[in-house]
Amino acid sequence: MKAKLPVGIIGLGRMGQLYARHLAAMPEARIVAVSDIVAGHTEEFAAQIGAKNWSANYQDVLDNKAIEAVFVISPTNTHAEIIVAASETGKAIFCEKPIALTLEETDRIITALEKTGTMLQVGFMRRFDAGYVAAKKQIEAGVIGKPTTFKSVGRDPFCPDLNYARREVSGGLILDMAIHDFDLARWFMESEVKRVYTEGGTLAFPQLNTVGDIDNAVINMLFENGALGNVEVSRNALYGYDIRTEVLGTEGGLNIGYYRETPLLVMTKQGVTHDMVPYLHERFGQAYLNQTHDFINRVINNQEPAVDVHDARATLMIGLGAIRAYDEARPVELSEYPASSDSNV
Amino acid sequence: MKAKLPVGIIGLGRMGQLYARHLAAMPEARIVAVSDIVAGHTEEFAAQIGAKNWSANYQDVLDNKAIEAVFVISPTNTHAEIIVAASETGKAIFCEKPIALTLEETDRIITALEKTGTMLQVGFMRRFDAGYVAAKKQIEAGVIGKPTTFKSVGRDPFCPDLNYARREVSGGLILDMAIHDFDLARWFMESEVKRVYTEGGTLAFPQLNTVGDIDNAVINMLFENGALGNVEVSRNALYGYDIRTEVLGTEGGLNIGYYRETPLLVMTKQGVTHDMVPYLHERFGQAYLNQTHDFINRVINNQEPAVDVHDARATLMIGLGAIRAYDEARPVELSEYPASSDSNV
Amino acid sequence: MKAKLPVGIIGLGRMGQLYARHLAAMPEARIVAVSDIVAGHTEEFAAQIGAKNWSANYQDVLDNKAIEAVFVISPTNTHAEIIVAASETGKAIFCEKPIALTLEETDRIITALEKTGTMLQVGFMRRFDAGYVAAKKQIEAGVIGKPTTFKSVGRDPFCPDLNYARREVSGGLILDMAIHDFDLARWFMESEVKRVYTEGGTLAFPQLNTVGDIDNAVINMLFENGALGNVEVSRNALYGYDIRTEVLGTEGGLNIGYYRETPLLVMTKQGVTHDMVPYLHERFGQAYLNQTHDFINRVINNQEPAVDVHDARATLMIGLGAIRAYDEARPVELSEYPASSDSNV
Amino acid sequence: MKAKLPVGIIGLGRMGQLYARHLAAMPEARIVAVSDIVAGHTEEFAAQIGAKNWSANYQDVLDNKAIEAVFVISPTNTHAEIIVAASETGKAIFCEKPIALTLEETDRIITALEKTGTMLQVGFMRRFDAGYVAAKKQIEAGVIGKPTTFKSVGRDPFCPDLNYARREVSGGLILDMAIHDFDLARWFMESEVKRVYTEGGTLAFPQLNTVGDIDNAVINMLFENGALGNVEVSRNALYGYDIRTEVLGTEGGLNIGYYRETPLLVMTKQGVTHDMVPYLHERFGQAYLNQTHDFINRVINNQEPAVDVHDARATLMIGLGAIRAYDEARPVELSEYPASSDSNV
Repeated sequence: MKAKLPVGIIGLGRMGQLYARHLAAMPEARIVAVSDIVAGHTEEFAAQIGAKNWSANYQDVLDNKAIEAVFVISPTNTHAEIIVAASETGKAIFCEKPIALTLEETDRIITALEKTGTMLQVGFMRRFDAGYVAAKKQIEAGVIGKPTTFKSVGRDPFCPDLNYARREVSGGLILDMAIHDFDLARWFMESEVKRVYTEGGTLAFPQLNTVGDIDNAVINMLFENGALGNVEVSRNALYGYDIRTEVLGTEGGLNIGYYRETPLLVMTKQGVTHDMVPYLHERFGQAYLNQTHDFINRVINNQEPAVDVHDARATLMIGLGAIRAYDEARPVELSEYPASSDSNV
Repeated sequence: MKAKLPVGIIGLGRMGQLYARHLAAMPEARIVAVSDIVAGHTEEFAAQIGAKNWSANYQDVLDNKAIEAVFVISPTNTHAEIIVAASETGKAIFCEKPIALTLEETDRIITALEKTGTMLQVGFMRRFDAGYVAAKKQIEAGVIGKPTTFKSVGRDPFCPDLNYARREVSGGLILDMAIHDFDLARWFMESEVKRVYTEGGTLAFPQLNTVGDIDNAVINMLFENGALGNVEVSRNALYGYDIRTEVLGTEGGLNIGYYRETPLLVMTKQGVTHDMVPYLHERFGQAYLNQTHDFINRVINNQEPAVDVHDARATLMIGLGAIRAYDEARPVELSEYPASSDSNV
Repeated sequence: MKAKLPVGIIGLGRMGQLYARHLAAMPEARIVAVSDIVAGHTEEFAAQIGAKNWSANYQDVLDNKAIEAVFVISPTNTHAEIIVAASETGKAIFCEKPIALTLEETDRIITALEKTGTMLQVGFMRRFDAGYVAAKKQIEAGVIGKPTTFKSVGRDPFCPDLNYARREVSGGLILDMAIHDFDLARWFMESEVKRVYTEGGTLAFPQLNTVGDIDNAVINMLFENGALGNVEVSRNALYGYDIRTEVLGTEGGLNIGYYRETPLLVMTKQGVTHDMVPYLHERFGQAYLNQTHDFINRVINNQEPAVDVHDARATLMIGLGAIRAYDEARPVELSEYPASSDSNV
Repeated sequence: MKAKLPVGIIGLGRMGQLYARHLAAMPEARIVAVSDIVAGHTEEFAAQIGAKNWSANYQDVLDNKAIEAVFVISPTNTHAEIIVAASETGKAIFCEKPIALTLEETDRIITALEKTGTMLQVGFMRRFDAGYVAAKKQIEAGVIGKPTTFKSVGRDPFCPDLNYARREVSGGLILDMAIHDFDLARWFMESEVKRVYTEGGTLAFPQLNTVGDIDNAVINMLFENGALGNVEVSRNALYGYDIRTEVLGTEGGLNIGYYRETPLLVMTKQGVTHDMVPYLHERFGQAYLNQTHDFINRVINNQEPAVDVHDARATLMIGLGAIRAYDEARPVELSEYPASSDSNV
């Protein structure tokens, strides 16, 4: 039997626990240590997933010499510091998206990774969803010809916690939600975004005004190769979690997404009814699992990351441009932003 | 038995013949006279549909005193002249969309109609499609709460005739196709559009560059009440006629549109396949018929038009703004355009 | 312009009026005379559809020498008499299904038609529905290999009028409803049915017991070539008109049918809802129209009927067998029934 | 942290390994010992799933006093012997369906369980699928009124191994496949089956004739309460794994099942295509996991089984009746079979 890759997990919030459970059930990995800044449940949770070591300090995980790969699932504003520290240890790093909310922090991460040659994979999990993977294959096979238009809808079924909604915490609506769509846009269209323009507003949850965020936005995109795009994000799809992407090409089109969660149609005099995908875990639970498998196997086989820090930087830049376009009510050329300081890109 | 409304038809192109066939089969109307500037087939076609009078000159139809309502289905650049002439005769007028390609012509029509008190209904036939009608009812019933976002996709399965594609003939991609979506936007959102921004390009049919048109556009909209919108139009949906509209609200959402034309699923090792809506007539044939019934009955019952000239003007203005936004690569406030000269609006 | 085929219509009930309206709007036919045994509305209806002659006596239609084709849409128990009389006149005959409720009457019709060489087409309109036509083409093209299993569901959304429900009037549940499915079975499977077995009962509308009918049945079929089948018919699909057919083959499968009538999805916290096909006309209106076009053009072009009296006889025999199987609670071999007396079959 | 239930697994074929992997990843259980009669891989597999004990002899698992519950996932013809032996040990038993292929063996199991008061749960995993669970809830809530008709389709995408296909090994087509549908029939209709009639044949895979099995069957059912049913099973759905169930009631209907596996529509000039559910694991993987959770928690909480040996017996009887009906080409009353010897039923 093949040896299991020894891993550590930093951050045991909702998402950290999800990664931990996936890793605990995975034949090719074993969890050696976990940490979470909030004391209390870490010891018990460590026992549940079979991790012998636990701590309130992430440095303890990084210092554990048995560990070969570390999952950084802590709050976004701690990512840069932890990644820089981790890059000194030689461990491979998986970091949940976004790795940072500013280009400056991202460039600091890039510099640290380059200095030490550390492998970092970024958690854009949609790239591991069966629907998006199948769509990418169709594009690569030329089934729809040359992609001309990228469309994406990302709608959440509730107003987020007001503190989380702040731009400085989650990035706000556009960075928090549309970042997945921006990543898909680059991946599917195989071109960088050149220009963005955003209309947005607070239409359903006025309380978001108190923290400077909005609840709806439509973002037009022009790609470097002339292709077009639009991303819509919303907090008020009270009917469920509505995630859809379309790619139109010169020879055909692709639609990714679905509504029905349970395979049951109920037919009465009131019509034909089915349920709706409730939220993230139901829609993308398997994608998270696939992504973790992918990362573990890349580390074991000494491969390049599936999504790297430069993908994270380019995607962040689209989001920052979309926010600036909204703030200043004008189209924003992404050339307004500096290129990465990394001369190797 | 109720007397049949005597009608005349001006213009017997593809659409004019469609209206003629619908009227010929309609118990509440009878076709008295038709005209088409192109000689040759008019006499034969008149016989087929049971019209006793035919002419190459539209004035002959207008001069026919037996006729109470006239259908203007001639080329767009003749609409204004014919409507103005018709308004002198006291006949009710149905005019296929768009009634004009400029605000100046539209205002000339408005002045003529007001002077004579003539009834004019404009051919935005989607308002008579069962899906859109049902959606409007759901909005009015408050099922989705307050509408926050309007989304529309209009994709044609081929490149149009190059001469037709010119802006001065059909209005070009944005006026020719998106005008239906702009009309739906005003109807569903119950708010005027305040600002538009367009990205577009010639991505599939480079021949369109020779006549100054494009084949794809994404148009962001901000409504007066703060709501958001986006309309996508394309010429390169080679897979079929793809017409869809969504309205998101504070309590739910509506999706209008469909893909499958024939109710057959074919299941083989290659997957599950069905056909696609081929084009306009398959998708909206019934809506055109419903619209003609509606107009005839409004004339018989002396009612206001379902869609009037002010709707046509407001919709045209959105389209002109969207074109200007593309040409000048900047958001266009619709307040840049003059209000209608009609003081009664 | 081509001359229009002069036709007569016998029977102006709900279905007769439907045929009349289709014929009135059809460029290749004109209605010369109509008759209905119930006086009162015939004259007015004749005027509406432009028929100059009307009568309470079907013989008046048959005696009209100008008429070349006659539509028999009268009650089933009058079909045989009218067809036999019509066959003496040399007119082509279209008869709504079923042409008779007994093999004896059917054989009398066959004898009359053969003596005079009259063309009779039987109204199995599903053969003219776009979905079933497309399915037949897929089978003929070999897409699903050799058909192994035929499945059909036919569900009505209400209990019929009790008098109509009697076996001697409509044939009862199995003959009235499943006869369409039996016709499709022979058409798709290209094999005659060898044996049937029926389970049935009165499960939703006990009032049907008073007239000797049932409201639900499932009918197993074994075809001559060894293929299998099952037909379900029901009166209690209160949610709508549920008509579906499947064909499984050695290489694939076909599913024909649909639920949604209006292309609108309504999404709320209660789930995703759409409407349902309400009833016959919404589902098969176009098929009836196509069928009438087909018959008219066959008469004009002197062609064989699309569905002939032998199809009607073979289909009736399956239905009679299914009823006997239910009555006697045993499998019924269709060889229990005599072959047609027609030696030319 | 709660103690984990110590379990043993007997049988490590394809299904046994599936259960083992689910148990290994489950926080509320731990695998103490496994056995498989085929030596070779058992030791390695035991290590993978963290089981300290492994054996070629199931008695070793039964003798392990630390174990509180045992999973019997061995070949069907060994179930009775193992269950009887297990019932002596006081361990709770989970047995994959079918627990036996004869009523005699089933009655032997019943006797053994009763003598020792052992808890046995039977593996009808569809009862743990989200779609079927939701359907059951709708029935219980009265949404469709009184169920009148049960319909089920079960189609496999390939011909089974010829040895497995034998009736004495797997039960043959009807027992192997339709047994799930018979279980659902009893569960949804809340009535026992009274009579069955089967048509069947070897239509796609003639090689099945050499082992006495068939590849297609349609089975009519009459329930004790008068309701109707039909189950179709097939081996030649080469397009995929096609599992669907419908319940029609006096007020509405339910449809359970789906075709699309990956949420991607591909639209080209050839039509709109999506993939199909490939096979068992993709369709019911989660149901198997839910079922294992359910059993473990019932054991921990000392509850009755969700599906017991009497359900297994009644379901087997329907299958045996359906086979006899096919063999003898006659309806079979299930009263032909003896009632369970268990006087407590």
